[in-house]
Amino acid sequence: MKKKNKKVNAGILIIGNEILSGRTQDKNTTFISNWLNSECGISVNEVRIIPDIEKEIVKNVLELSKKFNYVFTTGGIGPTHDDITAKSISKALKVKYGYNKEAFTILEKYYGKSKFNDGRKKMAKMPGGSKLIYNPSSAAPGFIVKNIISLPGVPSILNSMIENCKRYLIKGLKIHSKTLNLFTVESNIAKQLTIIQKKYKKFADIGSYPFFRLGQVGVSIVTRSTSKKKLQNISKDLIRIAKNKKIKILKI
Amino acid sequence: MKKKNKKVNAGILIIGNEILSGRTQDKNTTFISNWLNSECGISVNEVRIIPDIEKEIVKNVLELSKKFNYVFTTGGIGPTHDDITAKSISKALKVKYGYNKEAFTILEKYYGKSKFNDGRKKMAKMPGGSKLIYNPSSAAPGFIVKNIISLPGVPSILNSMIENCKRYLIKGLKIHSKTLNLFTVESNIAKQLTIIQKKYKKFADIGSYPFFRLGQVGVSIVTRSTSKKKLQNISKDLIRIAKNKKIKILKI
Repeated sequence: MKKKNKKVNAGILIIGNEILSGRTQDKNTTFISNWLNSECGISVNEVRIIPDIEKEIVKNVLELSKKFNYVFTTGGIGPTHDDITAKSISKALKVKYGYNKEAFTILEKYYGKSKFNDGRKKMAKMPGGSKLIYNPSSAAPGFIVKNIISLPGVPSILNSMIENCKRYLIKGLKIHSKTLNLFTVESNIAKQLTIIQKKYKKFADIGSYPFFRLGQVGVSIVTRSTSKKKLQNISKDLIRIAKNKKIKILKI
Repeated sequence: MKKKNKKVNAGILIIGNEILSGRTQDKNTTFISNWLNSECGISVNEVRIIPDIEKEIVKNVLELSKKFNYVFTTGGIGPTHDDITAKSISKALKVKYGYNKEAFTILEKYYGKSKFNDGRKKMAKMPGGSKLIYNPSSAAPGFIVKNIISLPGVPSILNSMIENCKRYLIKGLKIHSKTLNLFTVESNIAKQLTIIQKKYKKFADIGSYPFFRLGQVGVSIVTRSTSKKKLQNISKDLIRIAKNKKIKILKI
């Protein structure tokens, strides 16, 4: 994994009717986003959840692939009729969709020749020029082609594969974050937060999120920056404001 | 709520850095999607998660508003500097961003004149022409303007408000769904599923999702259609296939 001193970003494309219909709760966004940031210094800047429809996959893969350094897709690389991600990406990139020899060999070995049926063979079909993302839990590999990385939708399998993406990624500057929990309401500190955000506009993002804990309402102030020093400075400013306003800080 | 015998769809726009960074798990997609389908016969066809950046909100609101019958936005309508949803939607629609009189009155009454500070007043600012979505849990209303419905990001508050959206929505045909859980692997039935999906192409979507239960692997076959009759027919076909292949059906 090469390291570069710059910001690197990614988009995530969640492919699957079961997420859109509300039947299944998406867990891959949180996992991929946390992993990319902590392990690779890559920020996720957009996520889209779309149905298993070829033209939607084509359009969204192309848009995200142009907009971000990397696109991670999840879902639609299994053996059944609704698994159309690999074929759709081939179409988007105008490359051949066919057997990847290495994937074919891995799967044939895993299932054994006699049980290597058409459905299973389908999982070895990928866009031409793909490199494999190995799958330690259920054999069927994901793939990377250009800046598009395709992983399965089942969270436990995806999680087991994610480390194998690392070798293909350029490392960016890690985004650090610091959270300060204040026992107050947002509107009580809104003005001061605006001033601080303006002061550090170029260096940090400041978000405020209400919480309920121990029967009291509070606000989590989350600051995110590539500079730990700036985070410390912002934290000092925030603590000073809390003291001036006699706001209790929640220590956790 | 008017009823029409047609398909009605929606997009969801989740606005918030905290979801993208992986800090917070989005729960609103599943809730809104299930509610829209069961209560209103409206299908969610796309979800996007984007950061608190004005030009991103403007662009995505316009795209989704054009593409679907309704757009639901969540997040960014609170009192702090990072709450820019209402202002951004005003910009997208080229309408005035200013105080909504009714919202101002509701909030002034709720907080009392002496505690109605600038941050709280900000929550009464909306795109011109907005109608209110009342908020029974924390007063600050959401709004609907054109086909865009803006709700807060905190799930418990959003959930308490959702019923108040109904009066503004046109009811569509409800999508029914039926799940059959088979103790087999996807690749064993992939071929048969393809045939069934082709047979019912115009009437139903069939999805297959692996599961792990009682120490065994299985596949959930989920069929979705506006016609209950078609679902029953598909179910009969699936049960016949399972019997032919001696696949055990999980009864739950």
